[in-house]
Amino acid sequence: MESIGNLFQTGDWKGEKHVPVIHIPEKVKAGEKFDLKVSIGDAIGHPNSFEHYIAWFKVLFHPEGGKFPIELATFNFAAHGEGDNFTEPVGLSTIKLSKSGTIHAISYCNIHGLWENTKDIVVE
Amino acid sequence: MESIGNLFQTGDWKGEKHVPVIHIPEKVKAGEKFDLKVSIGDAIGHPNSFEHYIAWFKVLFHPEGGKFPIELATFNFAAHGEGDNFTEPVGLSTIKLSKSGTIHAISYCNIHGLWENTKDIVVE
Amino acid sequence: MESIGNLFQTGDWKGEKHVPVIHIPEKVKAGEKFDLKVSIGDAIGHPNSFEHYIAWFKVLFHPEGGKFPIELATFNFAAHGEGDNFTEPVGLSTIKLSKSGTIHAISYCNIHGLWENTKDIVVE
Amino acid sequence: MESIGNLFQTGDWKGEKHVPVIHIPEKVKAGEKFDLKVSIGDAIGHPNSFEHYIAWFKVLFHPEGGKFPIELATFNFAAHGEGDNFTEPVGLSTIKLSKSGTIHAISYCNIHGLWENTKDIVVE
Ligand SMILES: [Fe+3]
Ligand SMILES: [Fe+3]
Ligand SMILES: [Fe+3]
Ligand SMILES: [Fe+3]
Repeated sequence: MESIGNLFQTGDWKGEKHVPVIHIPEKVKAGEKFDLKVSIGDAIGHPNSFEHYIAWFKVLFHPEGGKFPIELATFNFAAHGEGDNFTEPVGLSTIKLSKSGTIHAISYCNIHGLWENTKDIVVE
Repeated sequence: MESIGNLFQTGDWKGEKHVPVIHIPEKVKAGEKFDLKVSIGDAIGHPNSFEHYIAWFKVLFHPEGGKFPIELATFNFAAHGEGDNFTEPVGLSTIKLSKSGTIHAISYCNIHGLWENTKDIVVE
Repeated sequence: MESIGNLFQTGDWKGEKHVPVIHIPEKVKAGEKFDLKVSIGDAIGHPNSFEHYIAWFKVLFHPEGGKFPIELATFNFAAHGEGDNFTEPVGLSTIKLSKSGTIHAISYCNIHGLWENTKDIVVE
Repeated sequence: MESIGNLFQTGDWKGEKHVPVIHIPEKVKAGEKFDLKVSIGDAIGHPNSFEHYIAWFKVLFHPEGGKFPIELATFNFAAHGEGDNFTEPVGLSTIKLSKSGTIHAISYCNIHGLWENTKDIVVE
């Protein structure tokens, strides 16, 4: 069985316009709110047209030593030229964590599939 | 036929913890990116627990004189206490508009239903 | 304030290709599973292309005498021609209700906005 | 970097109540509609409560010999006991494919993380 897990692509976000970039503090306090932002194409923009666009980001948190990732948020970018209006692939929300772990971001391009990135976060 | 349109509640966000608050510039340039942020409970926080939480925001744009609203973004807040981790009802994305109109935000509480707010934006 | 509630359109599904059609039993037993299906264009198909498509359905339940609607499901139709593959606007899930009320379905066309339909259901 | 791809779990759906089960014809005609249904717990049911539930399914299609998977649909199951109403983890939509490939289904349990299954489909 081919696993969907093998279809996640990654790369250096400076050279690859599909890789989600995770913006978080390196260290936060347990139970304290912080902003988590995901963007894409910080160096090279991705197209945003009816035929080719970043449709969504998902963000999950994998607690250190835990078995399962926990979904934090999904951002759907719905406008790709309708009436010349556009939503760009940027998503921010506010998070509270209880322990250290890894943030996973997934992005989906309707033409170029699934992409991922991760960033560790220390929770004190 | 009872319309779902009659089930959207609103109120003053200073006194009502379910009303989405829209943060946008009053005026932007056509085709130029700006941040659109929606939050809730800026004055009074809403609970965030397994049993009671804000599940999502939707944001739409109704161009002045247009017939139809265009969906801009959906923000899903997925974590409500799993492993003591939480996503708070804050969503931001980046938008480009082509003309003036009205931004509509909808929030959904799993116990208290649908809420809405609107804000006009001038596009030059 | 213009309410988003005023922007939901409806009509006769036999003549209007945007109106969601709700397929449910007229009567079910409390706590027993039944299939809820929403389709569109049962009489006249809606286009499904990169530029023009039905993006999603939302389904809510408004219990008789209750104040708030409860979201039951969202169906997102993601493929609109990518590699000549398509998802058509049909969504089915399985529901258990505790009392009588009204099912509300919302559909969103990326060009023609928000549409709705409702159907009562008796729960014994 | 730990890949999110390593966090997808699978197993025999007869013994494991988190594995999505894909119901499709073995063979379809190119460009002809067919029903794709995903369920879970066909043998053993999964809990559905405020604290523990299947939140969503995603379905993707990986064309044979293609580089990228294409998202077909997302099903969000929103009700987990609100007013004693429930949405069970069953999702069906209607699909048209242009060539043979593999259907991937992902399920997410808010406690037990990401699960997957796949099924090949012949398109003639
Ligand atoms: Fe791309
Ligand atoms: Fe509430
Ligand atoms: Fe349309
Ligand atoms: Fe589980």
